[in-house]
Parts: sequence; C-alpha cells; structure tokens
Amino acid sequence: MKKNQFVPQLPYGTRDFLPKEAKHKRMVEESLAKLFSSWGYDEIVTPTFEYLETLSVSGGAELAETMFKFFDKKNSILALRADMTTPIARVAATRLRDNGPLQRLFYLTNVFRHEEAQAGRQCEFYQAGVELLGEADAAADAEVVALAVQAMLDAGLTNFQIGLGQVEFINGLMQESGLSKEECQQIKHCMVTRDLVGLETILAVSGVAEKTQQVIKSIPLLHGKEELLEKAYGMINNEVSRAALDNLAHIYQLLKYYGVEQYVNFDLGIIRDFDYYTGMVFEGYTPGLGFPICGGGRYDNMLSSFGAACPATGFALGIERILLALLRQEIDPDCNEREVYVGWNNGSLHKAIQEAVKLRQLGKTVELALTAQNREQAVESQKGRGFAEIIYFGD
Amino acid sequence: MKKNQFVPQLPYGTRDFLPKEAKHKRMVEESLAKLFSSWGYDEIVTPTFEYLETLSVSGGAELAETMFKFFDKKNSILALRADMTTPIARVAATRLRDNGPLQRLFYLTNVFRHEEAQAGRQCEFYQAGVELLGEADAAADAEVVALAVQAMLDAGLTNFQIGLGQVEFINGLMQESGLSKEECQQIKHCMVTRDLVGLETILAVSGVAEKTQQVIKSIPLLHGKEELLEKAYGMINNEVSRAALDNLAHIYQLLKYYGVEQYVNFDLGIIRDFDYYTGMVFEGYTPGLGFPICGGGRYDNMLSSFGAACPATGFALGIERILLALLRQEIDPDCNEREVYVGWNNGSLHKAIQEAVKLRQLGKTVELALTAQNREQAVESQKGRGFAEIIYFGD
Repeated sequence: MKKNQFVPQLPYGTRDFLPKEAKHKRMVEESLAKLFSSWGYDEIVTPTFEYLETLSVSGGAELAETMFKFFDKKNSILALRADMTTPIARVAATRLRDNGPLQRLFYLTNVFRHEEAQAGRQCEFYQAGVELLGEADAAADAEVVALAVQAMLDAGLTNFQIGLGQVEFINGLMQESGLSKEECQQIKHCMVTRDLVGLETILAVSGVAEKTQQVIKSIPLLHGKEELLEKAYGMINNEVSRAALDNLAHIYQLLKYYGVEQYVNFDLGIIRDFDYYTGMVFEGYTPGLGFPICGGGRYDNMLSSFGAACPATGFALGIERILLALLRQEIDPDCNEREVYVGWNNGSLHKAIQEAVKLRQLGKTVELALTAQNREQAVESQKGRGFAEIIYFGD
Repeated sequence: MKKNQFVPQLPYGTRDFLPKEAKHKRMVEESLAKLFSSWGYDEIVTPTFEYLETLSVSGGAELAETMFKFFDKKNSILALRADMTTPIARVAATRLRDNGPLQRLFYLTNVFRHEEAQAGRQCEFYQAGVELLGEADAAADAEVVALAVQAMLDAGLTNFQIGLGQVEFINGLMQESGLSKEECQQIKHCMVTRDLVGLETILAVSGVAEKTQQVIKSIPLLHGKEELLEKAYGMINNEVSRAALDNLAHIYQLLKYYGVEQYVNFDLGIIRDFDYYTGMVFEGYTPGLGFPICGGGRYDNMLSSFGAACPATGFALGIERILLALLRQEIDPDCNEREVYVGWNNGSLHKAIQEAVKLRQLGKTVELALTAQNREQAVESQKGRGFAEIIYFGD
C-alpha cells in the first residue's frame, strides 16, 4: 500500500452490497414487488428525507430520537425516514383521497435509524411492506397475514412461523386489573423486551390480585394453536379481551381458507415496538435468527394525524434479514450463472461484436472480451467464472 | 378541511411517485437491471450517505458544495451521495481488487444534489448507470456507448440521439493555442454552458492568432456524421487532438459493428460538467427535452484517488428524465392493467378467498373484496378501475 494513501471508511451502521449480495437482494425485491402487485397493491415512492415534523407526527418522541437529522437552507429540520408507514399514511391522506375508500399500497425501499447496528439490521436497511387502508374487518387483517406468508415463501424461505397476537387482549386485562397507566406502560415495556423478571417485580408491588398477576405474568407464554385460544378465553373476564380473542379466531378461520394456517401460531405476548398498533399484531420468525424477519398489525389511529381518519393494517419485511435467513438455512439461489463469453484475436473484433449482439437478441447473457486474446488466453482468463459457453473468433 | 389540521409539506426538491408513476419507474428500472446483467455487468449497492471526505475525494469542491451534509455522533461530516461514480470507484478500488483486472459494474439508485430543481431533476433523483473499469481501449468505450443506446431502446424510447465528443480534442487545441490555464478554464466553462458570447469575449482579449480563435469558436458547432471528423482533422495541427479524433473514429467503427451508428453523431463541443473526464464523452438527447437524458465518458484518473490507478469508462441515465421523455413523446406503457376482481356476499367469503388463491397460483393478478357486496355493488364499485374480469360469489 502506498504511503499517504487515502483509505476510505464507511460510516457506522452502513454497508456495501457486493455483486453476489446485490443480485440476491434484487431477486428477492423483484419477486416481492411482483407478488404485491398480483394481490392488487400499488407501489408508492416517497422522498428519502422529509420534515422531521411530518415524519414524527404519529411515531412519538422515541422514533424521532432515532432519526438522522439535518437542516435545510431555511433552517427547518429535515430527517431521513425511519419507517415507511408514516410517509405512506401521508400520501394516502393527502394525495390519494379521491381513489376510493380502499387503498392497497406497497413500498420497497431503504429506511434509516440511528440505533446500535446488529446482524440483519444496520442503521440503513431495506424494507418491503404493504399498507391496506380503509377496511376495519378481519378480512383485511387476514389478507395481510396471508400475504406476509406468501412473501416469505416467494422470497425463498421454507422454514418459518408467524406469531399472531392482539394488543387489545392485553389492554383489556390491564383495564380489568386496575393498574395505573404508568404501571401498564412499564408492563408493556417488559413484554416487548421479554423481560420476565422486570414484569414480576412491577406486579409484586402493584397491589393487583394474585390471580390477575398470574394471568398477566403468563401472557408472554401464551403461544400455541387453536387450543391456546380456548385457554385464553378462560383466563379473562372483560369484553375488550374477549373481543380481541374473537377477532383472532375470525382471522385464523380466514387464514385456513387461504391455506396458510400451518405457518401461523397464536402468540398473545406480541405487542410490537410501536405504540400505534390498535388490534391484531404479528411477527414472522425463522430458526437461527433471533429477531423477527417481518412484523406488522392494525393501526387504526395513524391516518387521523393527517386529517383523514381511516382504519389501516399492514406489515414490513426486512430485506437483509431475509437474505441472512436464506444464508443461514443454506438456501442459495443460483444467482451467479454466467452464460456466454465471447473472445477474439486481432482482426476479429467485428465478428465477436456481431455474435454478442445476435446472442443478446436471443436473450442470452453475454460478456464480450475487450482485448485481443489467443484461444488459450481466452479460456484461461475466464476459468472459474462459471461461463456455460466460451465462443472464440481467431485471426 | 378541519381547523388546526396538520397539512404536511414536502421539502424543496423532493417528490412522491404515486402508483402510476411508481409502476412505470419500476418497469423502466427492472428492464435496465436486466439489460445491464445480460451484458455481464454486476450490481453494486452502496450506503446512501458516506463521509464527505470520501464522497468528495475526486469530484472537487464544486460537487461537495451541492451535497446535503450532516454530522454523526462523533461530529464527523456525513453527506448524502451526489453521484454513484465515486462510491463505485471506492468499492472497486478497496473491495473488488481480487476480482481480476476487468470489472463491469452497474447501479440503480437515488442520488442527492442541493441544486435548483428543474423538470426531470429534483434534489433527490434516480439514476441507472454502468462503470467499466480496467480497460483503456476504444473497445470499452464503444461497449458503454452501445449499451447506453440499448438502455434507451429498452426503456421504451425510440427517438433519441447520442452526441459523441472527446475532451482531448479541445485540450490539444488549447495547448496548441498557447492560452493560459485560467483562460482555458474560462473557455471550457463557456463551452459547458454553451455561452458563445462569453467565449468570443475571452478570445478577443487573449492575443491568440485569429485563425486559432476561429477554430476554437467553431468547436461548439462541430457536430455531424463522419464528414465532420474529416473536417475536424483539417482544423488542427497537434498530436493530442489528432489522437482524440483517431479515438472517435475507432469507437464509431465499432459502433457500426454493434449496429447502433444511426443513433450516434459526433459533437466535439461536449465536454460535460465534471472535470474528471479524460477521453471520450457523450450525452443522449431526445426531442422536447432541453437537457441530456444520459451522459458519460472516460475517466482514467479517478480510481487513483483510492490508491488503485485504473482506466475507466461509463455512463448514467436519469430515470425521471426517461419517464418524462416517454410522457412527452406520448409513449404510454400499459402499466395500469388489472386482471380479476373477486366479489362476494355474506356467507361466501371462503369461496372468494379460495378462488383468489387458485387464480394467483395460475399467475393472475387478483383483487379480493374485503366486505360483502351484492352483485350490483360489486360491479358498480369497480367501474372504471379497468378490471378485465369480475368474478362474484353470491349468498
């Protein structure tokens, strides 16, 4: 290495996708775009940065804290988007109001969060997601869960499970127990972080009846198939939680019609990071990855922030997490195939070009040599690069 | 509109792509990704922001001035990338050195420039481009020009022309004329901005021989087919310019083998915005659009900034400019087709879901109703949305 040479570093939490990874990323993204379109979803592209005020209109201070911020020339604060749900809600509420009551929208883009980087999630990461706006019925929730299952299948995953919960189940239990608002927040935080010790500590000093404490403590353990729902009905004594379980039973019934119930478990401990979920919530997991590969749920209050109250449900998939899961499950798509290499020697470049043009018109992938080679050089130079065919034009 | 309602604005120079535009954008981008791959180019994805020091390593102060900048937690200056050539050069020089002497790379992404927004170019805009690294021969230049032609054809354009120039033709003339370095810079600036009056003024006070002045003033007018090259040979008397013309003649000969010469004119006045071009340069124009739709050229000095000197040639296409050109030429891709709408009435949702699943497995695009409708409501609700077929399940 030369002295004084500039050795560029990348900022914390950012990365390059080199050819093999980039090709794999594009394959997954194109398959998801195709899938979402085939279910009637339309793509929306929004600016990479917007006013901080707009992006944090519903996510609260917590989301705003994680944003990369800077100033425009008039000293207004701009921020890189930290999710796509808020921008999509903005577009739907302000620019698509005339498109009818029901909107199926999707996105496929990068978002930015100034958080600790981890496997499968850097500070800049890629998401694919859908938002289904305008329908409060379980049919809408079932559609997005079924679509999430199909998305993971189409991305190439075979071994995954979706955990399905309902935030109103927990909210009903909290109301029933007479906990203060602050205690409820603390308990939810423990559930999000799966902190069972913290949960126990808060409940121990809460003065809540022992039996109710036991029920609340058991929430994070409430996962299973249909028998789990039966058990949960027996644990509660309030209308809100009961309606939540009815809603889950209804969604599950519809998922059976979609033929995807084998991928779905109930998991009543799921309440997701964001406090804007208002009904069904879900997360998708795959073995060997300690974080969800996708997640979503119903969020009926967000669009009112933009002056257009409207029920909404949707989900997002982490593209890097899908790629990582495929890698860990050793599902290696054949994205390194090279078809034809065309080599030539002095005086034959015109023949080589014409052959490349002809083969490309036939749909072949063709790499053309750019310097004269003899036949041995041509073969030797492409050794190990995986070409199915080498065509050579001598002098 | 409600009082006190939050009406979100977008930052200057940013925009949303609504469904029709987003679909069109995706179609063009996917066709370009497919094309570049079929010519043996591999995609690279780099971070949206990098250290300002890295991004401005070769572009100079002018490019750095247009960048959106912000600080990381250690107060280092970050910037949103203003082009992709620099990040690609960084990747090639630091991470792909072992991939052999020749690298064919492409990108398809957004870049950011804090400039006055104009039709077809906002402060955030999308580019597709290729970089061909490691080959100084005209065969490499001809490949990228032929690929640019094919890219515009594949994007759907039919009416366009590529202007082909060579910065060394002008550099040779300047050397021959004995102009000062400062005068040369001023003259180049006038040529970039096509400021013929300014050009005349500078030359008038330069003391350069009248005949040479005439030659320099005529450069912006030097465009045409092969007879233009003959004319240009007669106007110069230095080796640098002569070699530049030989290079253009060679590239043009190869473009004939590619069968794309009808799209290419010589235009010796093209010298491009960036001062890093070192050889062939080109720009693609289409009627009705007053700015180039693509542009590129040879830049043999950039990679040495990253410690890996290496010849390089390439180009970038403006995605929004392509979309605008297609719109203005009234080339409207059929990207609004909807295939099947499945409606249902109470008690038949399961049949509707199963039908949708079946049709999607057959590759159909299917939108499923999410509320019960009678037959008339189903038909009425989808009027004008362009479905080829409405399937209905009554009670």
